[in-house]
Amino acid sequence: MEIQNKTYTLRNCRFLVDSEKIMENSNIVINNGLIESIGKEIEGDELDCSKWIITPGFVNSHVHSAMIPLRGYYDDAELTEWLNKMWEFEKSMQRELMKLGSEISVLEMLSSGTTAFVDMYFNPDDIEKLTEKYEIKAAAGYTFLDSLFSPEEVEEKQYQLKKCKNFFPIVNVHSVYSVEEKTLIRAKELAEKTSTWIHIHVSETRKEIFDNKKKTGKFPVEYLHDLGLTRLVNAVHLGWIANWEIDYLKEAKGATHCPTSNMKLATAGAYPFYEMLTKGVNVTLGTDGAASNNSLDIIREMKTAVLLQRHSYWDTRVKALDVFKAVTENGYKLLGIKGGKIKEGYIADLAIFDSSSIYPLLKDRIISNIVYFATSEAIVGTINNGKITKKDYILDKKKKLVNKLNELLNKI
Amino acid sequence: MEIQNKTYTLRNCRFLVDSEKIMENSNIVINNGLIESIGKEIEGDELDCSKWIITPGFVNSHVHSAMIPLRGYYDDAELTEWLNKMWEFEKSMQRELMKLGSEISVLEMLSSGTTAFVDMYFNPDDIEKLTEKYEIKAAAGYTFLDSLFSPEEVEEKQYQLKKCKNFFPIVNVHSVYSVEEKTLIRAKELAEKTSTWIHIHVSETRKEIFDNKKKTGKFPVEYLHDLGLTRLVNAVHLGWIANWEIDYLKEAKGATHCPTSNMKLATAGAYPFYEMLTKGVNVTLGTDGAASNNSLDIIREMKTAVLLQRHSYWDTRVKALDVFKAVTENGYKLLGIKGGKIKEGYIADLAIFDSSSIYPLLKDRIISNIVYFATSEAIVGTINNGKITKKDYILDKKKKLVNKLNELLNKI
Repeated sequence: MEIQNKTYTLRNCRFLVDSEKIMENSNIVINNGLIESIGKEIEGDELDCSKWIITPGFVNSHVHSAMIPLRGYYDDAELTEWLNKMWEFEKSMQRELMKLGSEISVLEMLSSGTTAFVDMYFNPDDIEKLTEKYEIKAAAGYTFLDSLFSPEEVEEKQYQLKKCKNFFPIVNVHSVYSVEEKTLIRAKELAEKTSTWIHIHVSETRKEIFDNKKKTGKFPVEYLHDLGLTRLVNAVHLGWIANWEIDYLKEAKGATHCPTSNMKLATAGAYPFYEMLTKGVNVTLGTDGAASNNSLDIIREMKTAVLLQRHSYWDTRVKALDVFKAVTENGYKLLGIKGGKIKEGYIADLAIFDSSSIYPLLKDRIISNIVYFATSEAIVGTINNGKITKKDYILDKKKKLVNKLNELLNKI
Repeated sequence: MEIQNKTYTLRNCRFLVDSEKIMENSNIVINNGLIESIGKEIEGDELDCSKWIITPGFVNSHVHSAMIPLRGYYDDAELTEWLNKMWEFEKSMQRELMKLGSEISVLEMLSSGTTAFVDMYFNPDDIEKLTEKYEIKAAAGYTFLDSLFSPEEVEEKQYQLKKCKNFFPIVNVHSVYSVEEKTLIRAKELAEKTSTWIHIHVSETRKEIFDNKKKTGKFPVEYLHDLGLTRLVNAVHLGWIANWEIDYLKEAKGATHCPTSNMKLATAGAYPFYEMLTKGVNVTLGTDGAASNNSLDIIREMKTAVLLQRHSYWDTRVKALDVFKAVTENGYKLLGIKGGKIKEGYIADLAIFDSSSIYPLLKDRIISNIVYFATSEAIVGTINNGKITKKDYILDKKKKLVNKLNELLNKI
């Protein structure tokens, strides 16, 4: 996997898999970070891929990457109590530890096939540097959260973030319950002015719905819609929304489901996955952070999403392909990048699976075996903007940083 | 990991973890397949374990090991339709393919830290050979299933199975809905005569409850109890039991929860995990087979079990330690083996985790990080009856068998 040329060929890939097709023994020509052709053509250096399954890279549409130091810190409470516990740790969390957490998160995500993520925390400038270092894509921004930061301060810092090759500044708003209405309006104006979108937790718990209804007379999604925000948002969680609120999300950038985090924090509710699909909402998936999931492995998240839907609906209408599409095609759509498919002119962001780990290896079982059976152990690398990143390199980097993390936390 | 002596020391284990304690930098002296001491003593050859976390090996209390060829064959239907689909494949399934499936299952389980399993299929004699070959423990037997086998035939073959070092003959009964009452009574008598127990699917779907109530006037667990079977059973699934039926399970050998399989097949219902614990039922966990889960990784199953309980109860009363105990201490209790703890006189069946994969590496977060974060990728080997089995060896063996499986299935 030493190829760094601008034009090269992934030759004879055992399988190519995206949400539209599965091809056997085909080539992918990559040129200048983009997919140039698929089929029998060969250009530039050749890489034998006869033992690999190639899929689009995965998008983790909701994560708090800095929170690795909080993994396993406190697991046993519902959201409000849990958030307070997190805060006990976070209020004294040094910038260095946040940065280290984000870097370990990036390496964990790459090692499970993730090529892009949407982040919410306090260190988007660190995230920008990491996207440069590892060629992973990220959407991140400073976070409106009235108890901690003045909206003016957030806005001012936000203007300092610039769009780069792999970094996409977005407006983070913690939630409707943690900011005033005027902050929401300010966030909307900021997103419009800077031509970006808003990333926000919405309708996560019953309590949030109850409180918002009491305060504003409206349900949270309805409330955001009436303020003109729904067309701008990646709305995350949505476990407790009314059926008619789904209509408001048709125009949203994304509607991100985080099944593991919701279940672990016992928020109950049910993200209406099937209804969202039926109405054409851009359904995306996220792991949430290491403190609530506690894994950042989007492959596991695909499976858990199907399981939760099937359990909630007492039927099997949500299928492996739906979640596979959510983390590939839909994820890149959220980011506004021509990616998430193995198609001419699309970005060469790809995940590489060892075909001996996905078995029985039969064409009509591949998506099932990726979603329900595979673990990140099957990932041998990713391709980011056409550049191959080996899993071994990632794991080696991670090991060093984990040692540092353990040293730092043992001192606290 | 080349030590094969009868007495040796796992020296300076970074952490020892069982359901009762967590110890740092301790030794385990192993003698003749048993744990002789824990602490500072050293005997025989020494193995540096300063980078390892040692736990008891895990017990997968319900699996259909032969079903690997059916992984991904059909994923999208509820139980009855799904069983019919399985049967389309199974009716022409050759013995060779069953055997291959079971061997791959054994290797998958070992590679995720499993040292014992409870199997139901048609090839217990193959299972016996595998337990000898790989030193994994298994409880298995021929299966009473009236539509396929006469009870006389099952009983006759069952008498040919002998208890060995790692193999425990048990009486498999498919379910209350697939055998007549007289078969259930015959199975009970057979279990009593051969001093063993019964492994049976019970109360998996609403349909089963409805049909059993209509046919016998009783709920399935109640029905088994009135026939005198509950004290003999490992009852599997139990997603649809009445609260008062839990009392009948107090005397059972085990009550096995298979959350992934239940969710994937949309059986809904909720195994009453917390009530079972409260009443002192021996709560155990199983992956179920590769056709319904589709993974045999008991580490993933621990996490899914907690998630489903928290989702069902809207609270966090079921915790990481509860599921960890279910797959260690409780699993060995089901098997009637003094194991599942790291304790003097207990069997040396252990799982070895690479400590750099379980982070942040802090004593009070270890169980959480094993249950909610770890994948089988963190497992570097198992110890079975004191004998060390390296993960590399297992993966290498598996790769060869997977090639064979793919060849065979591509011919069908």
